[in-house]
Amino acid sequence: KTIAVLPGDGIGPEVTDAAVKVLQSIAMRYGHTFHLKHAAIGGTAVDQFDNPLPQQTIDVCEESDAILLGAVGGTKWDSNPAHLRPEKGLLNIRKHFDLFANIRPVKAVPALLASSPLKEEVAKEVDMVIVRELTSGLYFGEPKRRSEKSAVDTLVYTREEIERIVNQAFEIARTRRGKVTSVDKANVLETSKLWREVVEERRKAYPDIEVEHMLVDSAAMKLITDPRTFDVVVTENMFGDILSDEASVITGSLGMLPSASIRSDGFGLYEPVHGSAPDIAGQNKANPAAAILSAAMMLKHSFGLHTEAAAIEKAVMDVLEDGYCTGDLAGDGKRTVSTDRFVTKVVEELE
Amino acid sequence: KTIAVLPGDGIGPEVTDAAVKVLQSIAMRYGHTFHLKHAAIGGTAVDQFDNPLPQQTIDVCEESDAILLGAVGGTKWDSNPAHLRPEKGLLNIRKHFDLFANIRPVKAVPALLASSPLKEEVAKEVDMVIVRELTSGLYFGEPKRRSEKSAVDTLVYTREEIERIVNQAFEIARTRRGKVTSVDKANVLETSKLWREVVEERRKAYPDIEVEHMLVDSAAMKLITDPRTFDVVVTENMFGDILSDEASVITGSLGMLPSASIRSDGFGLYEPVHGSAPDIAGQNKANPAAAILSAAMMLKHSFGLHTEAAAIEKAVMDVLEDGYCTGDLAGDGKRTVSTDRFVTKVVEELE
Ligand SMILES: CC(C)[C@H](C(=O)O)[C@@H](O)C(=O)O
Ligand SMILES: CC(C)[C@H](C(=O)O)[C@@H](O)C(=O)O
Repeated sequence: KTIAVLPGDGIGPEVTDAAVKVLQSIAMRYGHTFHLKHAAIGGTAVDQFDNPLPQQTIDVCEESDAILLGAVGGTKWDSNPAHLRPEKGLLNIRKHFDLFANIRPVKAVPALLASSPLKEEVAKEVDMVIVRELTSGLYFGEPKRRSEKSAVDTLVYTREEIERIVNQAFEIARTRRGKVTSVDKANVLETSKLWREVVEERRKAYPDIEVEHMLVDSAAMKLITDPRTFDVVVTENMFGDILSDEASVITGSLGMLPSASIRSDGFGLYEPVHGSAPDIAGQNKANPAAAILSAAMMLKHSFGLHTEAAAIEKAVMDVLEDGYCTGDLAGDGKRTVSTDRFVTKVVEELE
Repeated sequence: KTIAVLPGDGIGPEVTDAAVKVLQSIAMRYGHTFHLKHAAIGGTAVDQFDNPLPQQTIDVCEESDAILLGAVGGTKWDSNPAHLRPEKGLLNIRKHFDLFANIRPVKAVPALLASSPLKEEVAKEVDMVIVRELTSGLYFGEPKRRSEKSAVDTLVYTREEIERIVNQAFEIARTRRGKVTSVDKANVLETSKLWREVVEERRKAYPDIEVEHMLVDSAAMKLITDPRTFDVVVTENMFGDILSDEASVITGSLGMLPSASIRSDGFGLYEPVHGSAPDIAGQNKANPAAAILSAAMMLKHSFGLHTEAAAIEKAVMDVLEDGYCTGDLAGDGKRTVSTDRFVTKVVEELE
């Protein structure tokens, strides 16, 4: 298996290094060979190649079976024109590889509930997956333009675009508690009415799955007041951007959250949910857990290596339960360690 | 002063009745005369007139100096076609009267922090105002249509539309802690780039105000992790819908939150943030505080009666601090009372 490694900006390189170390340990222990090919993306790629997603990076990804990404972005590039901004690399790679399904599990970790802004009784046992449509909607719809006096973006969805993401959500629900919450704004938006119709059609093929429709404003409330109500949440691109970030902080474990952006054939891009955190970059302080768990998602989704993925997840949880954590999760009774030391601990658990 | 009273659906009539009783007590005590004219809106209006915003209701509002609204909506009308749905009455009245600025204060009430899903140390001392653009953006942009195979909504903003809402936010910030957080998605949307530009232009007229730009996904996180960071938040219609509902639950006092939807000349519509709660309608259980505090906002914004508004706010807080509350806020050391009894308590405090 060939893996394209795109470290990106800020703490991206440190956390992808960490994930690579864990992958190497897995390869050795389980007798796999992973070919790793590094390439540039984001601000780093802008600096080197004047392009946040250079052709040679696309080539490397085309020749790979999956992509492992660190993070992109940083104040350094904030005033660049749109086509030279780090985020553009991310938007382009999603679109180029048709990575239409963004999958973000959010699961409460008992050892970390103290870091949650929510009361423990609200955040405990939260266990959901947000499935966000990633290659359409307001992000890419045309016309998208501005003049001196006004600006316009277009929210457009085709039936097929909705069908494939909704199917994805139903399939994931089958492997979990069997409930799908579809989030829209059907009392205002035409695209949401079509969305709701497609969900109603597709549910016929999944009679075993419980389906619930929720307005986006209600969902934004329920994520806080009653997050355990959610199993699989499926929604369009912009709503998904907002709700998945909201969901990412409710359990206090943002530094632990992985994500996958996949297409139908199993190819996918895996990256931590947290950003590039330029303020702590290069200080051996970053929490590598999200990147490590993203690598585990890659093993599972793209390579079908379920045992290996489960071993990684268990190793990370064991290290946390032993009381080790990076600075972002420091607290009473915790031992704060460096990025390197955390990785060493995880690798030791694996052995 | 003439006030159009639109009770609407569900608990709408009970809570507007409550607000009217408080207004009558204020009128008597301070020597004002309020002419109250009742009219139908929402599902109730659909049932009576086949129109969620009948012409006679528009006429009553046109002849009034402000509008006091209860709530609209209910499962009864959920399968109606779009033009016969209760929400359409709300959307139409906003557009008809050009109520472009939706203002929602969110303030932590010490006596109610136990009801917050957030840890008390996160939610305490929260004190923000969300200023949402209410008559443009995705809600009203054209084209807005669908076919068998696809659907489209349009997010469009003109410079003038942004200017007036941004000015409103700056003016409100001047009466508060002097900070404006403008929320957009400028790394993806053209409308957001224009929005950010206008904020940068307008801030020159308000050198005393601190300005911060925040991406909508970050804002959705910060509302939970660090809500005290916000003073005045200004944003476009759809983002405002999501973020203001998210913000409404962080302090545990949703049943207490008022809102105003105003235009430049002082005319406005005042309504509780909570919905029509059909499940408890007619049971004398609903929390009337949000409607009462909405009436107070009306006295302040539309009639300039600051002393009277402050008296109402103080009376409501005093009743809460005395330990009285409706069922939604029940808890240790609280005395749960009916809607009527709560109103009587507030009126007694005023006397
Ligand atoms: C960087 C940005 C364009 C991106 C998005 O909005 O999709 C990010 O917020 C994300 O969620 O991955
Ligand atoms: C009822 C609905 C159309 C409305 C909106 O989305 O504006 C409501 O959610 C609100 O926030 O007042």
